[in-house]
Amino acid sequence: MNALLTDLYELNMVASYLRRRMNGTATFSLFVRRLPDTRGFIVAAGVESCLDFLEQLRFEEDDLRYLGDGLGFTAADLEAFRRFRFTGDVWAIPEGRIAFAGEPLVEVTAPLPQAQLIETFLLNRVTYESTIASKAARCVIAAAGRDAVDFSFRRTHGIEAGIDVARLSAMVGFAATSNVEAARRFGLVAAGTMAHSYVEAFSSESEAFRAFAEDFPGRATFLVDTYDTISGVKAAIAVMHQLRLGGRLGIRLDSGDLAGLSSKARRLLDRAGLSHVRIFASGSLDELAIDDLVRGGAPIDAFGVGTKMGVSADYPYLDSAYKLVRYQDRPVMKLSRDKVTAPGRKQVFRRSRPFSDMLGLHDEPVPAGRERLLELVMTRGKRTGSRPALSESKEQFQVDLAVLPEGARALRSPKPPPVRTTEALRTLSAETRRRLLTALPNKAAQTKN
Amino acid sequence: MNALLTDLYELNMVASYLRRRMNGTATFSLFVRRLPDTRGFIVAAGVESCLDFLEQLRFEEDDLRYLGDGLGFTAADLEAFRRFRFTGDVWAIPEGRIAFAGEPLVEVTAPLPQAQLIETFLLNRVTYESTIASKAARCVIAAAGRDAVDFSFRRTHGIEAGIDVARLSAMVGFAATSNVEAARRFGLVAAGTMAHSYVEAFSSESEAFRAFAEDFPGRATFLVDTYDTISGVKAAIAVMHQLRLGGRLGIRLDSGDLAGLSSKARRLLDRAGLSHVRIFASGSLDELAIDDLVRGGAPIDAFGVGTKMGVSADYPYLDSAYKLVRYQDRPVMKLSRDKVTAPGRKQVFRRSRPFSDMLGLHDEPVPAGRERLLELVMTRGKRTGSRPALSESKEQFQVDLAVLPEGARALRSPKPPPVRTTEALRTLSAETRRRLLTALPNKAAQTKN
Repeated sequence: MNALLTDLYELNMVASYLRRRMNGTATFSLFVRRLPDTRGFIVAAGVESCLDFLEQLRFEEDDLRYLGDGLGFTAADLEAFRRFRFTGDVWAIPEGRIAFAGEPLVEVTAPLPQAQLIETFLLNRVTYESTIASKAARCVIAAAGRDAVDFSFRRTHGIEAGIDVARLSAMVGFAATSNVEAARRFGLVAAGTMAHSYVEAFSSESEAFRAFAEDFPGRATFLVDTYDTISGVKAAIAVMHQLRLGGRLGIRLDSGDLAGLSSKARRLLDRAGLSHVRIFASGSLDELAIDDLVRGGAPIDAFGVGTKMGVSADYPYLDSAYKLVRYQDRPVMKLSRDKVTAPGRKQVFRRSRPFSDMLGLHDEPVPAGRERLLELVMTRGKRTGSRPALSESKEQFQVDLAVLPEGARALRSPKPPPVRTTEALRTLSAETRRRLLTALPNKAAQTKN
Repeated sequence: MNALLTDLYELNMVASYLRRRMNGTATFSLFVRRLPDTRGFIVAAGVESCLDFLEQLRFEEDDLRYLGDGLGFTAADLEAFRRFRFTGDVWAIPEGRIAFAGEPLVEVTAPLPQAQLIETFLLNRVTYESTIASKAARCVIAAAGRDAVDFSFRRTHGIEAGIDVARLSAMVGFAATSNVEAARRFGLVAAGTMAHSYVEAFSSESEAFRAFAEDFPGRATFLVDTYDTISGVKAAIAVMHQLRLGGRLGIRLDSGDLAGLSSKARRLLDRAGLSHVRIFASGSLDELAIDDLVRGGAPIDAFGVGTKMGVSADYPYLDSAYKLVRYQDRPVMKLSRDKVTAPGRKQVFRRSRPFSDMLGLHDEPVPAGRERLLELVMTRGKRTGSRPALSESKEQFQVDLAVLPEGARALRSPKPPPVRTTEALRTLSAETRRRLLTALPNKAAQTKN
């Protein structure tokens, strides 16, 4: 893995620390500062990609050449970079677990230069993957037991992002993906039928449907809205009868008033003795549109969810941070306005019923009836176990979702549960703030910024 | 390159076409249907990634095994896939050129199965890259000659996306990037200073600034808002004086009221004889925030733009489509409501002064005083030339931006110029619609949905 996958300022700081032998142990906490108004919870994800990176992290010779010749780092810096490895410990909330703002998703304890260099990569992967998993989870909640299918590959932020979205949406309960490579890589169900261009390439809609049914007997789903949806449904029914089709049959609606059209289509199908034919809907769907359809009783069996899930369109990032919370034996915090961080290594203590999270210090005893959310996933630069299977993360998500309070699950105006802090954390915060204020040159100004 | 980087429905259609020897020549047009209200233009991008993909496109043996064993394609399908290559022609608006909704960014003419299989990949790359380039261009316009620097790596949708964003923002005029790997790969200027954690790792702000200046003499930029911004500015001034620092000096503001703080900081620096010290601002900036600062006269020399540019936060996708417009000798269009597409192979004819675009047919003569925007970039599956250098695309963008009407450049309520259609295209559209409507079984319903 490439140690240049970072921001230049990380390399500046690392070079400076190495020159000064500032090798003391540091802890950085990666957390979401605040949730958007349209999110009631976070699905933790991304830490496994980070662990892969950390295990492989090193500077190759051509990296070093660029840092010397291109960016002016000294020969001594390059020698120190050449020996650089990640030897720290990582605690994390496992992928698929539900978390909230302020809770460390990942906590890294390592010699200061190591913990610093990796900031950019860790923020990227954890922010991105948690953003998508959290958005996809809302779509699954909205679908309320009907199938949700990932159709996002054509609009994700690049090809690798499309592969990631397929995996992350599967983790939170999507039933299938259109993405063939992702289906292969992760053992997912691949789903897909035909595009409008297929219908247009034949001289009529009926001819296109007949051709497709002949080629894929037993899994014919007809796209019925190329010209006129209701005519398309009738053409699909006629072909199903003519060819006496069996197997998994379906029609797909991709435009127009999905509620009205699905009801009309259902009636036409049922009257034709085709009540086993499934209705599939797609076209600019997100969790709110799905929720409207489901609550309105639209007879839709499966939802194809594309762009708006795949880029988390209403909020395509989370307000994440990676902050130094402890250096050597000294808790650290930032005081600048709106960006205060709590000091010290942390742990989250969860009670499932009734649901409540407490943010506390790493070494505190676990309060009665609670469990620790952060687990040790890497020690001295090596994973503590193997990468969890997608099925394990999926199950973990279902377990957490089952006890999540209604307010946090709500699709409109969700209310995340309050995360309280332990007495020990509050005491440490107050002490650290007092110490920092005493050290500032201009004491009057410090809280005004 | 992996032919499984596609949606399952493309493979279904391709297999069906191959079985039926539907190898007729098809043209697909990739265009943006409608611009978001907050965009006045599109910067074309992504076609070069597509050409790389098309040149390499093939099914490897392990792909075929999965398609057979995993997805049930027949031995005959697999044999046809094994021989599959892309042998078509591609016309495109070159990267860096400015375009508008309805104009084909890419047009593919190839045997139907080939032109169909590539839909997902082409839509992904062109939509994504054009989305980012268009957003970044607005940031450059807002900065009005001051430097814009890409700080987005930590929040892009994955690591490869971060590399892409650095390249695309450079293409539209960003001065530098924090992303070290991208700087190396594309020969960009790498920029970066220190993080808050650096300041916190020392026992005082002054000590941190002194250490950094000793380690990077000649390029010290101090982050001044870790505790209190004005105290931080004073500490920076003191260290600049004590160490008699020269070279490129700067301070960076990363929080708070950037307009007020930059003015105060400028006065303090000027009074201390440090008028050459640059002020750098960052923190949740987008084009509107930058515009407010610039119009308000804030003495800021450079803007670090991160998340909101890197994910195009207000609109993280474009409403793109890849539509069959011609099959064999037959123009094709879709009639379903809100998704009507114009038929036939197309060309865009531009006049620069006064600016006006006309959408017409591929083979029409170029109207007087206009140039063709779509160029032949691939013929029979091979690039017609080498990949353009980033500097060429950058220059192309500057040339187009210089003649773009004010309404399209506007950051608030932009008005894209109208794109008129030629007489020949209007005639073809009317004829095609008439032919399709005649062929529909239920003529009364066709225009309603």
